[in-house]
Amino acid sequence: MKGKLIGVGVGPGDPDLLTLKAVKAITAADVVGYFAKAGNVSHARRIAEEHFQPHTVELPLLYPVTTEIHRHDAAYRTAIGAFYDASAAAVAEHLMAGRTVAVLSEGDPLFYGSYMHIHVRLAPRFPTQVIAGVTGMSGCWSQAGAPIAQGDDVLMVLPGTLDEDELARRLSSADAAVIMKVGRNLPKIRRALAAAGRLDRALYVERGTMADCAHVPLAEREEERAPYFSIVLVPGWERAA
Amino acid sequence: MKGKLIGVGVGPGDPDLLTLKAVKAITAADVVGYFAKAGNVSHARRIAEEHFQPHTVELPLLYPVTTEIHRHDAAYRTAIGAFYDASAAAVAEHLMAGRTVAVLSEGDPLFYGSYMHIHVRLAPRFPTQVIAGVTGMSGCWSQAGAPIAQGDDVLMVLPGTLDEDELARRLSSADAAVIMKVGRNLPKIRRALAAAGRLDRALYVERGTMADCAHVPLAEREEERAPYFSIVLVPGWERAA
Repeated sequence: MKGKLIGVGVGPGDPDLLTLKAVKAITAADVVGYFAKAGNVSHARRIAEEHFQPHTVELPLLYPVTTEIHRHDAAYRTAIGAFYDASAAAVAEHLMAGRTVAVLSEGDPLFYGSYMHIHVRLAPRFPTQVIAGVTGMSGCWSQAGAPIAQGDDVLMVLPGTLDEDELARRLSSADAAVIMKVGRNLPKIRRALAAAGRLDRALYVERGTMADCAHVPLAEREEERAPYFSIVLVPGWERAA
Repeated sequence: MKGKLIGVGVGPGDPDLLTLKAVKAITAADVVGYFAKAGNVSHARRIAEEHFQPHTVELPLLYPVTTEIHRHDAAYRTAIGAFYDASAAAVAEHLMAGRTVAVLSEGDPLFYGSYMHIHVRLAPRFPTQVIAGVTGMSGCWSQAGAPIAQGDDVLMVLPGTLDEDELARRLSSADAAVIMKVGRNLPKIRRALAAAGRLDRALYVERGTMADCAHVPLAEREEERAPYFSIVLVPGWERAA
């Protein structure tokens, strides 16, 4: 009898933002898988580890070191595709042996998460369940106490990797926005927000719900580079009432 | 000494999608507030009630019956503004007496939630904390097993109340989309998706993570009206790999 694959959202960072459902799944799983960059600690593991049991078999899925290849390069796509194939095969081996495998995902598994690569490869072959989690962006706006959208607001989630004109154009037509993948894109994001007339409402949030979380108006942040996982929020609901 | 206001996200419906942090806050609160339509059960209360304690004081915040007034009507805005003022005053009375008040919010408190109206009125006057929750849309795409966005995808959250041309135009420029407030807007949403060439990818999801949740390709759903809280998903990540 085949085992079950469970994609488990572990939320944005604070271990208390795990759901009861995630805790039950992690506690009961035979195998717990998680992604990490080789040589780095897995954030998802750190969030969830207090619920690991003596019987828990850990299955780290370690990204190959590909920083020297640009991610739009065909060589990158080939390397990363092979890595996801191998990861799915490692998970499938446990499933074929009848074991339940919980694959941890920071935030929410099907919202920009690595788990999706396992899911699309194995869901056609094995019983699968996805446990929704609190997203990183929810953690950020909650930490900042910033109501993000209300009523008929249009909210856009934009990657900071878009080019400056496109960012500015999209920001002009959004009531509220979340800009992810900030990192080295911060100066460009700042210019695009200014061009769209939205810089004065923008908030910069670092490290979501971690203990050392910080949030400041973007206009007051002078440094021109930021951690990759920081995000920029443009709250909507301008006529708050 | 003033009490503390806590906005508590209770997730999309399944009581097991409460976070550990939400459970702790509800258990420890002196007062638990929740919104409901007069004469109806509060969904948020039903999700969280098993964690209420013998000492818990309940504070129902009952919406006035305003269905006969259109929500863009000035009279509606006046009535609803007065209701939020009165609700905030009722919460403030407990806070002034030094009590901790947890105000429940379906999904995530600062993402299209009623709690925001209490938050903006009281956060300047009282210590305030917001506990992020799993959104209804995460509950829906997890239930459907549909990866919603990946990599550089642009995701739009759109109210179904937008007019048909604007919906179609925005859907044409989004990689992924979530359309909320479906209800009587379903025929219009269907036409806009067809005009944008996205109808074949659209999923219709009813009742998020409830026990009786249902999801079907929108193209296969024939009925022309839907519950207000149903949503339509257009998964991105077309080049899934």
